[in-house]
Amino acid sequence: MPVIATIRDALPDRRTALTPAVAGQLVKAGHEVLVAKAAGQAAGFEDAAYSAVGATTVSAADAVSRADVVVAVGRPSAATLAKFRAGQVLVASLDSWGDTVPLDKAASKGVKLIALEKVPRQISRAQAMDVLSSQASIAGYRAGIVAAAAYGRYLPMMVTAAGTAKPASVLVLGAGVAGLQAIATARRLGARVTGYDVRPAAREEVTSLGAQFLSTSVDAVGEGGYARELTKEEAATQQKELGDAIATFDIVIATAKVPGRKPPLLVTTDTVKAMRRGSVLVDLAASDKGGNVAGSIDEETVVTKNGVTLIGAASIAADMAPAASDAWSRNVQAVLAALIVDGKVDVNAEDDVIGAMLIPTKEASV
Amino acid sequence: MPVIATIRDALPDRRTALTPAVAGQLVKAGHEVLVAKAAGQAAGFEDAAYSAVGATTVSAADAVSRADVVVAVGRPSAATLAKFRAGQVLVASLDSWGDTVPLDKAASKGVKLIALEKVPRQISRAQAMDVLSSQASIAGYRAGIVAAAAYGRYLPMMVTAAGTAKPASVLVLGAGVAGLQAIATARRLGARVTGYDVRPAAREEVTSLGAQFLSTSVDAVGEGGYARELTKEEAATQQKELGDAIATFDIVIATAKVPGRKPPLLVTTDTVKAMRRGSVLVDLAASDKGGNVAGSIDEETVVTKNGVTLIGAASIAADMAPAASDAWSRNVQAVLAALIVDGKVDVNAEDDVIGAMLIPTKEASV
Repeated sequence: MPVIATIRDALPDRRTALTPAVAGQLVKAGHEVLVAKAAGQAAGFEDAAYSAVGATTVSAADAVSRADVVVAVGRPSAATLAKFRAGQVLVASLDSWGDTVPLDKAASKGVKLIALEKVPRQISRAQAMDVLSSQASIAGYRAGIVAAAAYGRYLPMMVTAAGTAKPASVLVLGAGVAGLQAIATARRLGARVTGYDVRPAAREEVTSLGAQFLSTSVDAVGEGGYARELTKEEAATQQKELGDAIATFDIVIATAKVPGRKPPLLVTTDTVKAMRRGSVLVDLAASDKGGNVAGSIDEETVVTKNGVTLIGAASIAADMAPAASDAWSRNVQAVLAALIVDGKVDVNAEDDVIGAMLIPTKEASV
Repeated sequence: MPVIATIRDALPDRRTALTPAVAGQLVKAGHEVLVAKAAGQAAGFEDAAYSAVGATTVSAADAVSRADVVVAVGRPSAATLAKFRAGQVLVASLDSWGDTVPLDKAASKGVKLIALEKVPRQISRAQAMDVLSSQASIAGYRAGIVAAAAYGRYLPMMVTAAGTAKPASVLVLGAGVAGLQAIATARRLGARVTGYDVRPAAREEVTSLGAQFLSTSVDAVGEGGYARELTKEEAATQQKELGDAIATFDIVIATAKVPGRKPPLLVTTDTVKAMRRGSVLVDLAASDKGGNVAGSIDEETVVTKNGVTLIGAASIAADMAPAASDAWSRNVQAVLAALIVDGKVDVNAEDDVIGAMLIPTKEASV
């Protein structure tokens, strides 16, 4: 049976790609499982918990050299990648839309790179492998919690002897997996929730969660379940119409990421300026390329001069590392089930799911 | 009409005792309203918002010297208290269970001190004045949010393509106003919630919110709606029975404060050690005299060696300063309505509500 190892190389990400629960199941299935020392610690899984289920704690170098399949969360460093051999398999989110040089090098050497971010999510067989969805679900839930914690008033309506507090008004921009979870969480907390998405088909999903749907005149259905990138004119119209609406909300959660692209600016500087003191904006698309919210900085909380709180939270799923690792590990387990046939690793480039995730060997590099 | 002023002297408390909304209503009723510069700023209320409703921004010294009635959140410093004149009224939470020397000095000089913490909450007319309740309500709600933010997994059950996450189990210790709000908030978020209180009468309130009630063999009904202080034997029995139960929960929110007394220790060091890695305890009774949870430190988050997070949160209501100030101001407004009769201040010591809150003049000091 193939040896499976996990490493945690993409610091400071706290997640791990293999929880003791899943490691134990792999051991039971007959695999030798190697866990790089402290790989699960930041997610709340001690080395002892892995030993308890029959996995072996080893150095990160040994994990890579002895494994047939290495599973991870983020792309390992170039130095670690360089240590992989031909025929070894790496399953991780490989940032294949970023700097591809280290990936191309490894692929041309014969390392089989399975990029989880390229999961063909429209194929139902791939849904159990979909880390984008599982992590977006956590990000959306957590965005609702973080927004509630940052907001200075109740989310639910409160009727007390000292008077009635009205419910907070929450707007969720983008009704993908993260957006729908953010809507559900804000609804659970009793807020008045409105959802928005450029895809008019999202209206039904938003309203089925008990939220209002905010309409604009822009429509943008894209491939693979994503919104397509808008033209400049469309974006301007969308921004103007949205801006007026956004400024009336207490809390805005922006979730409009387009994989591998600059996220659309949905909340402009002028809109932020027009918002009430005490309003909170959570930007799940915050990045060094800009986010959905003007002025948001990833991993930081900024309070504007007019008293609006901007929370940059692109990596928010990793802040809930135990749950994020549970889900990631189950996704990885589904990938392993597709990769390991009759006790042997078989990376079948012709398979519509595995093939879609496999980083191709560049002709030029061969 | 009496002049009403507010000061913010009890730093670092972010709350204000008079929001622009209530200030505006007092102005409309014919009062001159003075607001010490920046008194509302930390709660999100700018000086301009007070000017807009007809209140006047002045120095803190002018606010005290020109007012007939001064309203505040916490007890002003001894220096500020010394500036009050005979006949002036101060309405605030005065820490009358703490060092009483500055209070006695002011009272003996003829300053009328209305201690909001002494509100006779069992009298229905006093309920609109009850800052203990209004702030406990906020503390309980916020404890639920803070616990959810600190916990590394979902509170609700989640059914996804990558598997099912079971709901978090939450135990709320103490079923007063704060405890019931914590239960309601955790329930809203989808957790499996259990409540506990030494008063068996609390069972009905807990179960009416859809939570389970945890029973022990100790019963302790006290005066004025509080639990009475337990005997040492009762406390030991309660701790042993509770300890075994507590260690099984993911999240514990402890809300058992006894005004003016050392809070009961409900979660011992042994119990904390027996809890699972990743568990979260929020202690609303944390204080320098100890709290409900062994090892909790007020205003701090401590992670134990076994990976349990202890959050000391006695002042958690002040962290939601806008809502806390809204409620406090409405409570103060109700007190003012009882103090000001026919356009004149009338501190009637014979009144069962006002009399209960008035700090008496010590015979010895006269």
